[in-house]
Formats: sequence, C-alpha cells, structure tokens
Amino acid sequence: MDELDIEVVAEPSLDDPVLIEGLPGVGHVGALAADHLLEEFDDESTLVRRLYSTAFPPQVSVDDGVASLTCTEVHAVTDTGGRDLLVYTGDHQAQHGEGHYTLAEAYLDVAESFDVSECYALGGVPTGELIETYDVVGAVTGEEMIDDLESAGVEFREDEPAGGIVGVSGLLLGLGARRDLTAACLMGETSGYLVDPKSARAVLSVLESRLGFEIGYDSLDERAEEMEAVMGKIREMESQATMDVPSEDDLRYIG
Amino acid sequence: MDELDIEVVAEPSLDDPVLIEGLPGVGHVGALAADHLLEEFDDESTLVRRLYSTAFPPQVSVDDGVASLTCTEVHAVTDTGGRDLLVYTGDHQAQHGEGHYTLAEAYLDVAESFDVSECYALGGVPTGELIETYDVVGAVTGEEMIDDLESAGVEFREDEPAGGIVGVSGLLLGLGARRDLTAACLMGETSGYLVDPKSARAVLSVLESRLGFEIGYDSLDERAEEMEAVMGKIREMESQATMDVPSEDDLRYIG
Amino acid sequence: MDELDIEVVAEPSLDDPVLIEGLPGVGHVGALAADHLLEEFDDESTLVRRLYSTAFPPQVSVDDGVASLTCTEVHAVTDTGGRDLLVYTGDHQAQHGEGHYTLAEAYLDVAESFDVSECYALGGVPTGELIETYDVVGAVTGEEMIDDLESAGVEFREDEPAGGIVGVSGLLLGLGARRDLTAACLMGETSGYLVDPKSARAVLSVLESRLGFEIGYDSLDERAEEMEAVMGKIREMESQATMDVPSEDDLRYIG
Amino acid sequence: MDELDIEVVAEPSLDDPVLIEGLPGVGHVGALAADHLLEEFDDESTLVRRLYSTAFPPQVSVDDGVASLTCTEVHAVTDTGGRDLLVYTGDHQAQHGEGHYTLAEAYLDVAESFDVSECYALGGVPTGELIETYDVVGAVTGEEMIDDLESAGVEFREDEPAGGIVGVSGLLLGLGARRDLTAACLMGETSGYLVDPKSARAVLSVLESRLGFEIGYDSLDERAEEMEAVMGKIREMESQATMDVPSEDDLRYIG
Repeated sequence: MDELDIEVVAEPSLDDPVLIEGLPGVGHVGALAADHLLEEFDDESTLVRRLYSTAFPPQVSVDDGVASLTCTEVHAVTDTGGRDLLVYTGDHQAQHGEGHYTLAEAYLDVAESFDVSECYALGGVPTGELIETYDVVGAVTGEEMIDDLESAGVEFREDEPAGGIVGVSGLLLGLGARRDLTAACLMGETSGYLVDPKSARAVLSVLESRLGFEIGYDSLDERAEEMEAVMGKIREMESQATMDVPSEDDLRYIG
Repeated sequence: MDELDIEVVAEPSLDDPVLIEGLPGVGHVGALAADHLLEEFDDESTLVRRLYSTAFPPQVSVDDGVASLTCTEVHAVTDTGGRDLLVYTGDHQAQHGEGHYTLAEAYLDVAESFDVSECYALGGVPTGELIETYDVVGAVTGEEMIDDLESAGVEFREDEPAGGIVGVSGLLLGLGARRDLTAACLMGETSGYLVDPKSARAVLSVLESRLGFEIGYDSLDERAEEMEAVMGKIREMESQATMDVPSEDDLRYIG
Repeated sequence: MDELDIEVVAEPSLDDPVLIEGLPGVGHVGALAADHLLEEFDDESTLVRRLYSTAFPPQVSVDDGVASLTCTEVHAVTDTGGRDLLVYTGDHQAQHGEGHYTLAEAYLDVAESFDVSECYALGGVPTGELIETYDVVGAVTGEEMIDDLESAGVEFREDEPAGGIVGVSGLLLGLGARRDLTAACLMGETSGYLVDPKSARAVLSVLESRLGFEIGYDSLDERAEEMEAVMGKIREMESQATMDVPSEDDLRYIG
Repeated sequence: MDELDIEVVAEPSLDDPVLIEGLPGVGHVGALAADHLLEEFDDESTLVRRLYSTAFPPQVSVDDGVASLTCTEVHAVTDTGGRDLLVYTGDHQAQHGEGHYTLAEAYLDVAESFDVSECYALGGVPTGELIETYDVVGAVTGEEMIDDLESAGVEFREDEPAGGIVGVSGLLLGLGARRDLTAACLMGETSGYLVDPKSARAVLSVLESRLGFEIGYDSLDERAEEMEAVMGKIREMESQATMDVPSEDDLRYIG
C-alpha cells in the first residue's frame, strides 16, 4: 500500500456541496456531530470514498467479528432540505505530523473533485471545567466570514483557542486557505474530560442554521443522558469518599 | 540495506499452503503457538525466506555467542497429516506504523508467491484477569467464514476485541481483504500479564481442527507448568506480605 | 504540500544583509529579541518569504478568529542606521531531527539568494539559577571572529554551552560553516524557567554594537517588568507557604 | 544536506586494516576505549573521513567557542607495532532505527573502501551491580572466531547479552555478516550506572592481545581514579544519610 490510497466507491453528482469534517478529537465532539448527521440522514447518504493511509495506526476495527482496515470514509448527503454535504468520518487521525499534512491535502483533493467551495471542520475546545452553557467558538480562513457565523451563534474571541488548532481541523483551514477555500472551524466548548454529546449538539445547531437543514436529536440526547448518569455517579463516589467536589485531576482520565 | 530485503533461502513446491502468522504480541500467545508448531514439525519444516527491514529494531540477537540480525523467518511445513503450512515467526514486530504496513504487505507478497489463499493470524486478547477457561476469540475478513470457525470452537462477540486488532495480525486481515485473501485472526484469551502457554494451546487446538493435523503438547504443557509455579509463588508472596489476593497492579509488570 | 514550500512574497534589493534568526527556544530569548527588532523597525520591514513545511507541527495559530498555517517568516529590514537585516521569526521549530536539517538548509538557501555572508543565531543558555547580570555567551564558526565579538561584550568560555547547541541555531552554524558562511550564536544567559525579556535585551545590545543600528527598548522593558511582578508574586507565595526561598523545582514549570 | 554525507579528508594507503568502532553506549565503555586508543596513537593517526547525517541529533558541539556539526570521525592509525587500524568515534549515535541501519551500512562502505576484512565493535554490557573483576563478554559473526577470542580472554556465555545488542555495534555484526565481514563485539562488563574507564581498559587489553599493539594506560587509569573518588563520596553520603549501602536506585541517575 502506498502512503495514501483513495478508493473510489461512488461518483454521484452533487450540487455545490459543503465539506463537513468530523474526525476524533477533543471530547469526541466533531466525531459525535458528524456521525449523528450521517445517522439522521441515513437514507440520503452514499459512501463515495475510502481513504487508506500508512499514516493511520496499523490496525483494523472489528464489527460483529468482521475486520475492516482503518480509513476515512467520505459520504455524500443529498436532499437534506438545505445544502448538499460531503461528510468525512473515521475512527482515527494520522499518527504523526507529516501524516496530518498528507491526509489533509488528500481530503481537500477529494473535495475539489466534487467542486466544494466551503468547509466546516467540527471539533471541541477544552475549557478544563464542567460546562453549563455550550458556546461554540469559531476560527475562519478570512474575516469576511465572521459576521455571518456570529449571526448563527458562533463566538469569536481574541485569544482563543490559545494554542491554535492542532490536527486535521487546523490544517483544513491552513491548507484550505492556500487553495482559496472558504473554511471555518466550529469548536464546541467541552470540559475535555468526557465524551460530550451536548457540545456536539451545539455545533450541529450552528450547522443547521448555516446550511438550511433540520435534524432530530433524540439519539444524541439519549447519549447525553447516559453521560450525565456517569457524571452523577462519579460525583456521588467522590462526595462519599472525600466529602469534596470532584477535582480536575479526578476527572482527567475518565473520558 | 533497503527498507525491505527478502532473502530467498529455498523454493519448495507446496500444495495450497495456509499462512500461519505468530509474531510477538499480547501474552506472547501467537509466538508461542507458531514456535511450538515448528518445534513439533521440526523434521517437516524448511526455512524458505528471511525478511530483513529497517523498520525492525536496529539490533542482533545472540545465541551461544553468535549474532544474527533481526528478521522474520518463513518456514514451509509439509507432510503435516493435513494442509501444508507457511509459518511466519521472529523476535520483533515493526517499530512504527509505516513499518507495520510495509512488512504486512511483504508477508502477503511472499504468501502470494506460494499461492496462499487462506491465512490465520495468531495472537492473544487481554482480559485483565486470570483465566480459568481459555476461549479463543475470532475476527475474519468475511462473515461467510464465521460458521466454520464457530464449529471449530472459536467465539465471535459483538464488541470484541474492543480496540480492534493492532499490528501485523490486524493488517494481515485488513490488507489481506483488499487482495481477496480469506483471513482470520485467532486470539486466545489471556490475562495479558504473563507469557501464556495455555492460551497458545487453545489457539493451536482450533488450528488442528481446521487444518487437519495433530501435534503433541508436552513441551508447551511443561512451559505452562513453569508459569503456574511462578504464579503460585507470586500469590504466596502476596498473601504473606499483605494477606490480600494479588491485585492487577501487582501483576502488571511481570510477564 | 511538499516537505518544504517557500512562498516568495517580495524581492527587495538588499545591501549585504545580515541573517538574524530568532525562533523559539530556551527562555524564549531569541524569539523575544527578533520579534522586538521587527517591532522597532516596523516601518523599515518588508515580509519577503514564508516557509511552510510538513516538519512543523500540523497546526494553525488563530489571531482574532482568523487562522494561519504554521510557518517561518523572513522579513527584510533596511534603513536601520546600520547594516541591512534578514530576520527569521515564527512560532515553531521543526518537530524532529530530519526536519531541523531540512529547515536550516532552507533558511540558508533563502539567505544565499539575498547574498548573505554573515549570520547571527539568537538564543538563550540556561543557567539553572536566577540571573543578576545578563551575560551573553558566544559560539562561532571560526575562531577569527572571537576578538571582535569579545569587544562587543560577548563571552567565550571553555566548556560552554556544555551540551552543545541543539536545533536551528546550532545547525545554522554547523551547516553554515560547510557553506563558508560566517556565523555566530549569541546566547543570553537565562534561568531557563521563565520567558526572559532582560536576556533578550542583552543579546540585542550586542547586535546593536556589531551591526551599527540603535533601537528603543520600552516595550521589552515593560514586558520585563511584568515578568518581575510575576517573579515577585512567586517569591511571596513561596515565603508565606514555606518561609523558604523558591527552589529550582518550584520554578521549573512556570515559564 | 542529504540523509548521509561522507566527507573524504584523506586517502592514506593502509595494510589490511581492522575496523574499531567506539561510539557512545552503555557505561560509555566503547567510546572511552576508542578515544583512548586515538590519544595514545596521536602521532600515528590521520583523520580520513567525516560522516554527517540527518539521522544524528540536529546539534553542534562547541569547543573553546568554535562550533562543529555532529558527525562520526574515522581515523586511520598506522605504525601501531601491530595491525593498522580504522577507528570510528563521535559524540552521538543515530536518533532512530532507520538511521542506525543507514549509518552502519555507511560505516561498512567506508571500511570496504579500505579493504577491511575484520571488525571489532567495542561496548559495555550492564550487570546492574558494582563490578570487582572486569570480564569482557563477546559476540561474533561466526563460531569459528570463538576459540581465538577465548584465548585472548573473552568470555562467551549461553544467554548473554540477554536482550541482544542494540545500535551500531549490533548492526556492524548483523549487517557485516551479510557482507562476509568477520566481526566481533567486545563488551566490557560495567555496572551501567557510571562512565567506566576500568571496563574500557579491560576491552583494550583484549584488542592489544588480538591485534599485536601495546599502549599506555596512565590517562585512563587517572580517569578511573576520579570515578572511584566520585563513587567513594556517594557511598559515604549514603552511609551517613541512611546507614545503608547504596541501592541500585540511588545510583541509577548519576553516570
């Protein structure tokens, strides 16, 4: 296998589609959001590409006993009620810096072949504390995009995210800008300690408003309730054991 | 030396051979199984290939003062009473992701040159607890293989192995499937803390049933007894010191 | 994107310019010094090159919501009152050894295209203790440079820096020498625990003396006062808590 | 700079020279031995090659203020009273597996250009305890070498070194054997905690016997006495502090 191997599964014709990237990252926010999107648009989705790479971990996932090689899947979604979508999902990001560059360029190449002119990279931004209100923080390739996104509820802050954006979401903006792609990163605030379905819902709400589709949230809300139950149990154990509120350190290794 | 250097040692003609991979991994189960197989079929085995690679650790092993460069050895085994075999063994896996892909492809290339159409990757699956009954968990390239393997005693479980299969065993399935190779991974349950000859025996029993050969287990059973003695001593020391049963943490760094 | 991608932004004609490298390192001394130089010569500076590389971390920085891909920027500075300058700044060094070599060679290639014959790599040398007098330690490509630099206040010491010079500053000397470039590394002494504007000022004073320009230090002095305030608070907390002076270990993870 | 850059400094004609490798490793034994050899044969030595590589750490060493790029130096030594020598020294080994292979092959290429047919890789083997008698353990490319080396005082042991030989010394044997080079690794026993001049002397004694030269040991013995003084102080501090003998853990981070 070469460093990169793009398998063409289908070639549907799409109407000015929007790239949605939801690979794993902080709080699993982007992945939860993109997976939920595909679940809700199950009947409207077609797998169009699989991207294999030696930059992925050397591993297969196993589903009901059947193994499949680590890859990024690209689904086309049509008849959304709004814009057509090209959704990137998968279990892994690249394992090293060079691989991130190689894969981000490949993602953009696939997007170009479908004439994508707009891109949303979905992710989470860690706050280090439990969240009450789930804000969505934005970063863009050009400041002319800021007003529209603010109208959709996205916040832009002077010094956030402080350390920049690492991995595929960052590179889709950095490398996309060099190709004149209009791209934004939508980062749901999340504690950073736990898989966070509520943060994913906040990010999807922005997308609904921007791209003109509507989806249900039952399965995501259910998952959020499960996480609440886990959190409740942790709080209880903590207070029984030490009569203290859980400290950051206690939570750090859970999610 | 190039990234990969395949030394042709012999070119026997084989009758529809089956690839058996037993490189080091969890509980050393796959390696114990494949090494035992070669030991039992010592007279029927021929070394056919050595695969050297810069992806292996830069190291020699030393046997009675004589050094030999890290490699994967491929032995052909004939006159087994059942199917002909092509057995892959060695002291090391690749040191990084790219190397795993390179070597797995090379293993498959060698297999193709012997017209291999079926592959068994042997390994262990860690349970985190001491094992009473040694089940063998399976993963396959296609669900049509599941029934036959279940008949041979292999278990298929909805969510196992949870993290997928990492390393050469996983890639033989993932990359093998892309070449239309019929491949299965047979994973003996093992605590994950110790070298586990009993788990290796459970895996070999499945192979006997599937491939129609029969082997003795005296040396493997002996090794299992040695491990039992080690375990017994650990339990004794633990109970003297703390009057507690050994905890997982106590055992973690032993094997 | 290739391993290295040099974007030509402008091609001003320069008069025998001097390379000044100030990428991040110990105490952030070199970066503070070079950034301050560009700030003071804001009107006299022109961005001439951006160097992108897959050896940089796969990341964008975000400034007021707008993302920009990690790179090294090269500014030409003219009308300094002294020598013309070619100043290298950025948020990151390469992430691995090979990348350091690739980028240092690329920095030298850009310098050659502007006929640079002299180079100053700026950095810090950690002393492990709080500094009273900020000496600047030197290293050079040829001993004939030592006298002039000593006249400018640089110290040369038998066994310093003990571990050599790691990263881009070291390679500009090591690889520069192989191209017959006259290069020196100017290392401001710094505790190594904190960002150190005073050390950066000491390094810039040497440059002023060597290259014939004069700059103001107000903004750098302000930043130094902020750091002093931080240090004061640490000392206070320490003495309240333990009635001891702060130990090295206490300070280690602050800067 | 390419991955490998071999600078030809001189091309003396040598009479059937022997490769001696003494790069840094366990207890610094090989490096101490090879450096001492060059010091004792200072007048008989000529620098013949410098090998630069991007696999070395990206760094310069600084000697009296003058920087020099990390490399391996090869000296030819003639008029030894015995065999001609080709001695490999330097401050660093490669930083990763692939680099070890690349450099070891390059070392062998240089050796071939001088018609080397015999090689001694010098190193240390860690025992984990303080040493009374400094044995030298051997490993070879072919068992026909064992008798002669045993006569020179080298010990060959069934299971040592247990983990094989890692790094350039191992690869000179592993890759050398594939070129039909007669090669041995001579490993002085050493605690592994401290730089060990006594172990280096033991290794050099074997070389004297095998290669027919004689050297003085004053400077190496002096260094050994310095280390003894350091050890004495550690023992004293330990016994004052705890009235215990120093444990392995206490010593681990000193050398």
